[in-house]
Amino acid sequence: MELDLSVPAPELTARLVDIPSVSGSEGPLADAVAAALAALAHLEVHRDGNVIVARTAFGRPERVVLAGHIDTVPVHGNLPSRLDGSLLYGCGSCDMKAGVAVALRLAAQLTTAVRDVTYVFYDCEEVEAERNGLLRLSRTSPELLAGDFAVLLEPTGAVVEGGCQGTLRADVIATGERAHSARSWLGKNAIHAAGGILDVLRAYQPRQPEVDGLAYHEGLNAVGIGGGVAGNVIPDECVVSVNYRFAPDRSAEAAADHVREVFAGFDVLVTDVAAGARPGLRQAAAASFVAAVGGQPRAKLGWTDVARFDALGVPAVNYGPGDPQLAHTRDEHVGVGQIEECERVMLDWLQPD
Amino acid sequence: MELDLSVPAPELTARLVDIPSVSGSEGPLADAVAAALAALAHLEVHRDGNVIVARTAFGRPERVVLAGHIDTVPVHGNLPSRLDGSLLYGCGSCDMKAGVAVALRLAAQLTTAVRDVTYVFYDCEEVEAERNGLLRLSRTSPELLAGDFAVLLEPTGAVVEGGCQGTLRADVIATGERAHSARSWLGKNAIHAAGGILDVLRAYQPRQPEVDGLAYHEGLNAVGIGGGVAGNVIPDECVVSVNYRFAPDRSAEAAADHVREVFAGFDVLVTDVAAGARPGLRQAAAASFVAAVGGQPRAKLGWTDVARFDALGVPAVNYGPGDPQLAHTRDEHVGVGQIEECERVMLDWLQPD
Repeated sequence: MELDLSVPAPELTARLVDIPSVSGSEGPLADAVAAALAALAHLEVHRDGNVIVARTAFGRPERVVLAGHIDTVPVHGNLPSRLDGSLLYGCGSCDMKAGVAVALRLAAQLTTAVRDVTYVFYDCEEVEAERNGLLRLSRTSPELLAGDFAVLLEPTGAVVEGGCQGTLRADVIATGERAHSARSWLGKNAIHAAGGILDVLRAYQPRQPEVDGLAYHEGLNAVGIGGGVAGNVIPDECVVSVNYRFAPDRSAEAAADHVREVFAGFDVLVTDVAAGARPGLRQAAAASFVAAVGGQPRAKLGWTDVARFDALGVPAVNYGPGDPQLAHTRDEHVGVGQIEECERVMLDWLQPD
Repeated sequence: MELDLSVPAPELTARLVDIPSVSGSEGPLADAVAAALAALAHLEVHRDGNVIVARTAFGRPERVVLAGHIDTVPVHGNLPSRLDGSLLYGCGSCDMKAGVAVALRLAAQLTTAVRDVTYVFYDCEEVEAERNGLLRLSRTSPELLAGDFAVLLEPTGAVVEGGCQGTLRADVIATGERAHSARSWLGKNAIHAAGGILDVLRAYQPRQPEVDGLAYHEGLNAVGIGGGVAGNVIPDECVVSVNYRFAPDRSAEAAADHVREVFAGFDVLVTDVAAGARPGLRQAAAASFVAAVGGQPRAKLGWTDVARFDALGVPAVNYGPGDPQLAHTRDEHVGVGQIEECERVMLDWLQPD
């Protein structure tokens, strides 16, 4: 598959959507992106697995990092892409192949700019943190991610979103005692006992704190459940996988303590945690970008790799085309106008008239 | 693996236990059983998949069928077999390789008898009814199962158990709406909704009716649960697999209606149902066996293939070594004395002094 970076960004988005790239299967799309960037003489291209980094060397005093993940959540009957009027539908259209398309278009067009630019395309953002390609690169080649400021082109509705909520996954385990299901009263049914875990989840009241002037909204949800031995056995274990999304005024450790406390009486095994990031819009680099975009910044509710850049000491914001509320839905889509708007705003910011 | 049918029944049980035969993997054990029976000149041996039938041709006016399944539930750290004093431990020791060992010992010893005998060893009794080897044989070669009376050597504690409860499996399905877990309030969590299914199960009061003088005890249990799309997606489906064990005064159809009524408001898909069998101990053939064994008959709670024989018009009872309450437990075991007792009772009944 070959990517033509000269087509308009909305059309490029459709082509990216039509190369499926569910987390763990990004190879073909990564190949296409790497090949397209390698053809651009003003970029130095690095590849590490399915992570591709392309850097300009304009000799400017400031360097900006533009980053996006190329993976998607599982396909849900929503491929190939479909254009309906001014809306482009398809798995990953909103989260975040539209943002990736904007970055690729900038990479192709900005043969010069007022800032040096590092383009980063990476894999496995939609799965557990340990598989995240940006995390791997930040450990193996942090120098490739260096910069004065980073923009993550996650869907924000073309509004600057500051900070991000943290995310924690844990297995909450109900136990019981096996028995033949014909004499169930001799055992203890772990799936029935897991009803107590679901009771907690159903009654949970999430916090909605304000942090540095932005309003966050937490959530605690089951994202998986499994249990059962055989069709005639009372099961002795049932595991509920929960996902806690926590505001950036709470540390990863405090989030883990909270989940353990909420599920007191059950075994809780934290399997994955990524801290959030405070908004940080008061820092100079962020403020300049906010001014260029215009409008009123919002809180970012989804976890994004702004937290990763924050940990590397690079101030970062989220800004990209697409309504974040459509991410991961079957009906996922993105407005053609927003893709064009984001491309224009960033072109003007990096290459003013 | 070779089976020596000349060893005492408890030792033969241990050897059978040490040939693992979880449902679907009975091949090696079926091979060993078929080979051992083929060596006996007074038997005509038939094999159909992993079902083995061996018949005498003594020319007696009455034929009795002795039957047992050779499969077990999944191994649970309880192999190989272990003899502790007079108790033999191991997966399948109680349910029902001790009964199979008794039948094999009878097959080897009864070179003549007052009744003709048909020995039946079959696979896939511990899984969904459609895979049951005896069911297959009853459809393809019912003549091989013909007889005046059948004894199923399922564990009964060496007491005659009449009838059996029916068993029904159904998937009860909770639905929701997918969303990104960072904005969970935009979706509807199907796993949380399945809490309503677990509420029903936790509150359920099983019937304990008396049928033809024997006391039954029903049960309705989750035996499996599954749901989840990805670690950051609010899931839109959660399936709870339930197993309803129903007394033989209720038909398969009435059982299905009951389950649908209990889970009103959820989608219910009946996946597997096997009717029970009324005790039937007042029939002449059953009564003669009961008299030979002595003691007080009990109700059979677990579903057994007495229901299958009942449907073929062959009166049948359960009678075999092992405490049925230990079946499917990790601690499964059988008393050596009961194995010997069952062998002696049946030898005396078929070949009186």
